This record gives sequence, C-alpha cells and structure tokens, in this order.
Amino acid sequence: MTRVEIEYCVPCGMLNRAQDVSEALLTQFGEELDEVALVTGDDGVFVVRADGEVVFDKTEDEYDVDAIVRAVRPYVGAAA
Amino acid sequence: MTRVEIEYCVPCGMLNRAQDVSEALLTQFGEELDEVALVTGDDGVFVVRADGEVVFDKTEDEYDVDAIVRAVRPYVGAAA
Repeated sequence: MTRVEIEYCVPCGMLNRAQDVSEALLTQFGEELDEVALVTGDDGVFVVRADGEVVFDKTEDEYDVDAIVRAVRPYVGAAA
Repeated sequence: MTRVEIEYCVPCGMLNRAQDVSEALLTQFGEELDEVALVTGDDGVFVVRADGEVVFDKTEDEYDVDAIVRAVRPYVGAAA
C-alpha cells in the first residue's frame, strides 16, 4: 500500500495548504492509500512524497492540488 | 519527537472528522509533533494513537476534539 508524506513549513502557516492536499488525496484515492502524513517542517519547505519519492516540491513546481493528485496516482496501490 | 495516527473509517465518511482532529493537533502543537498521519480503515474505526498508544477510541470515548488534544499532550515532545 502507499504512504504519502506532505512536509510543510509550520512557521510559514502552510498547514491549510497541507490539509487541502491531504483532503484531495484521501477523497480521490480513499483506501487505495495506506496513509497520508502531515510532517512538520520549517524554512519554507512544502514537499509531497509518495513512498519516499518526491512528487511535488514548492521550490520547483507551481502549487496545484490537482497536479499533485495526478503526480501521486502512479504510486497508488503500489505493491506493499 | 511524536507521531500521531488517526485511523478512520473511509466508507463511513469520517475523513472530515479525521481532518478536524489533525488540524486541531497541528494548530495546537505545531513542530512539537513530528507528524500526524491519517490512516485509512473501515468497519467504523476511529482511533487516535500517540506514539503507538491509543488515546481515543470511538467505541469507548465520546467524540470531542478538545479532549483528544488534551489526551495527546502528555506524549508531545516525548524523547525521540
């Protein structure tokens, strides 16, 4: 099963964005995902990883929830 | 650091409650928590664990976000 991590910058107030992404992923994939973890960080970080692979990084990609959901799809239901 | 898991029943539509609890915990404790993981489940499950210890179980406790936050507090900032 698939674990998604959303590492976000706490002091920058990115919790809402992190929650939006987790809600979109869990609404889209439900039990096909094992878990979505909101990981606290700082220094402006906003990175999404699927099974350890970076699929979105704020320093490189435009923030777009639908694009992040599409980027996670190939990892969904991956062999445990 | 502290990991909190919120295992919730996907088919029962408990994602919103799970999101409310994760938001309350992350708003209250921020970087004192390492991560809050939303873990998909079924069969009516709604269980909150802090570092593996059950601190809320829907089959035993009244659902109350503030009470769940208070129950997590002793585990916050626990030695890594």
